[in-house]
Amino acid sequence: MLHINAERLLAGLDTLAKIGATSDGGVERLAMSEADMAGRRWFKQRVKEAGLEFHADGAGNLSAVLRCSKPDAKTFLAGSHLDTVPNGGRYDGALGVLAALEALRTIREAGLDLPVHLEAISFTDEEGSVLYLFGSRSLIGELQPEQFQNSRGGERGVLDGMQRLGLSIEGMLGARRDTQSLAGYVELHIEQGARLEEAGTNIGIVTSIVGISDFWLTFTGKANHAGTTPMDRRADALWGASAFVQQASQLVQTEFSPGVMNVGEISAKPGAFNIVPAEVKLSFEFRHGTPEALAQMQDQLLALAEKIAAAYGLGLKIEPAGGYAPALMDERVMAAFEASADDLGLTHTRLLSFAGHDAESLSHVVPSGMIFVPSVAGISHSPREFTHSHDIVHGANVLLNTIVELATKLD
Amino acid sequence: MLHINAERLLAGLDTLAKIGATSDGGVERLAMSEADMAGRRWFKQRVKEAGLEFHADGAGNLSAVLRCSKPDAKTFLAGSHLDTVPNGGRYDGALGVLAALEALRTIREAGLDLPVHLEAISFTDEEGSVLYLFGSRSLIGELQPEQFQNSRGGERGVLDGMQRLGLSIEGMLGARRDTQSLAGYVELHIEQGARLEEAGTNIGIVTSIVGISDFWLTFTGKANHAGTTPMDRRADALWGASAFVQQASQLVQTEFSPGVMNVGEISAKPGAFNIVPAEVKLSFEFRHGTPEALAQMQDQLLALAEKIAAAYGLGLKIEPAGGYAPALMDERVMAAFEASADDLGLTHTRLLSFAGHDAESLSHVVPSGMIFVPSVAGISHSPREFTHSHDIVHGANVLLNTIVELATKLD
Repeated sequence: MLHINAERLLAGLDTLAKIGATSDGGVERLAMSEADMAGRRWFKQRVKEAGLEFHADGAGNLSAVLRCSKPDAKTFLAGSHLDTVPNGGRYDGALGVLAALEALRTIREAGLDLPVHLEAISFTDEEGSVLYLFGSRSLIGELQPEQFQNSRGGERGVLDGMQRLGLSIEGMLGARRDTQSLAGYVELHIEQGARLEEAGTNIGIVTSIVGISDFWLTFTGKANHAGTTPMDRRADALWGASAFVQQASQLVQTEFSPGVMNVGEISAKPGAFNIVPAEVKLSFEFRHGTPEALAQMQDQLLALAEKIAAAYGLGLKIEPAGGYAPALMDERVMAAFEASADDLGLTHTRLLSFAGHDAESLSHVVPSGMIFVPSVAGISHSPREFTHSHDIVHGANVLLNTIVELATKLD
Repeated sequence: MLHINAERLLAGLDTLAKIGATSDGGVERLAMSEADMAGRRWFKQRVKEAGLEFHADGAGNLSAVLRCSKPDAKTFLAGSHLDTVPNGGRYDGALGVLAALEALRTIREAGLDLPVHLEAISFTDEEGSVLYLFGSRSLIGELQPEQFQNSRGGERGVLDGMQRLGLSIEGMLGARRDTQSLAGYVELHIEQGARLEEAGTNIGIVTSIVGISDFWLTFTGKANHAGTTPMDRRADALWGASAFVQQASQLVQTEFSPGVMNVGEISAKPGAFNIVPAEVKLSFEFRHGTPEALAQMQDQLLALAEKIAAAYGLGLKIEPAGGYAPALMDERVMAAFEASADDLGLTHTRLLSFAGHDAESLSHVVPSGMIFVPSVAGISHSPREFTHSHDIVHGANVLLNTIVELATKLD
């Protein structure tokens, strides 16, 4: 068993948290901002201090590389991201990058010659301040300039951000790696939920980053006078929509746990105190860990909407509004995480990740895996985001030993 | 038993429907518009043809007067309104005015000397194109210039409309009648609903024009990530709001029929596919025929909202948003309507009026009553508004005989 240098890792996290620090103890390093660039400079310096090779690709991804003695060996990646959300916390992303760097530094200091090159990587803009998963999607070759417009700031915002980092479209496209050159990917992250803390479990092993399906549902009835139309003669679109919210949330809880659903937007037309709603439109999304579970949810939830519309004498329009397929983690990687945790005497459980991560991109092309460490009270994307030092060290040690384990299995 | 001249009444309705006629068979005489003024000129002419005195007050109310032989007798009123909604129908309002005029003409032709003066009156702007119940509220002294701002076009819109009709604020205030001079008020109107037609009943006798209570209800929860927050850890404001819509509509149907309720507007904040709603605000109104029933509805419905909020772990803000007290019709007037219908061999039933009418104003100061005749398919405020000729004649005959009956009872 190897062990990382806990003091060095924790000190690194403390120092990094000063870059973009906010007055209330939070951190703000939006991707491609000045603070992000300062963080990047600090990271480069730290890689060199560790005695590792520094590398930056055309998508702004930054890496520390520890080469093995076989020049044509594959590369095993470990990492996360250094950017944050607005007024975010100290751990989201930063932990995964610094723990990966610390793992490589420990392996180098131990003088291990593994059958793969190792690379600790920080991906550009995981949070999507400019374009969601910009770095990891570029690395796997899934990002094309046409997708720039599907961003908050539009194509112009992406190009401006790239210019600040000195990136070009050609460079971004050139960041694509030959997947044959990659052995796998592992990521350590804070849970951003309260499941581990509440269960008193040390390590969460992600089985899948959930898929998301989005729909617009529009129930249509008849806009009648809310005084003169008897209750039993109404085709009230809101009666159908509210029955759907009630029954769909029940169905998901009883049949699809731990899958989730949400109706986040709702509007009624014509929209007056004294007019029965003729049209109620709602945003509807649901998430689950496997393509099969997501398809089953879709079948049952849309059938439920149809059944309710018919029962209330309403019309129903169902419009797909995008989504993502579940990103399945690799069984060999999950087993290696479990073996490392067991060896370290740590408790662990398998769980779904309900938020997106860079591992989502990597899982499309190489065996990938992710572990979570507990978030106090489940708080994240907030200055109050906190993870205990012992949990940070546990997570980094599992990551380290899993890298060593997989280096021989996935070479 | 007296009988009105059916041909004359129906011909009058046909002629009046040409004033403001729309291309699809509807009628549009918005209060204080050019078409309204043309309708007013036609009415004045028709009053004179009938051999009745014409009178216009300072609120633009137009009357045909049939004086009795006692100069200091009270005046018994019958009427409705000549204005319409945009693209409205031929019967709403017009029927009540022309039937009242026809009743007076019939009584005059029969040479009856009743113990009261009779007045067939058309009230200004019942529909509220400029200011709801402008004429009838002026007549009972309930309208003050301060209320002008509570109108669609604001104070300016009301003053402009009044100017077109040649009305002044002083004149409007002077339209107030000494209630001691009034014996009562009756109104014939189309039902604007389908209850009479479906029951095959000739005459509906209104017991009350329902009161309305309006509230804004705001359920407040917590805006969580719709992926990472487990379903059983959410404080979803929409779950509470939708449960309220479901349970409140059930409660009203089972406990308060024929009372009604409506949630016509709904919005969720922050309002995104992937954020659990932190706040859902909805408009809520309910209607019933007596102050007691309305108060009971309010107690039970607001208690239900509180109970649901507590069950879902939500906050609840309840804001009153206005309303009207129920307008109770006079028992003697209702009994007189029933006696007249019985004498004429017509079936009748007591019911609530779920829409507002001029009788609402008059009921505040004098014994008042209203009858409905069937609306085909319940359609109103539409070019497709229709009432069969035999129903028009039935209603006018009940109105006529009730006036004669009440003239001696309420003198």
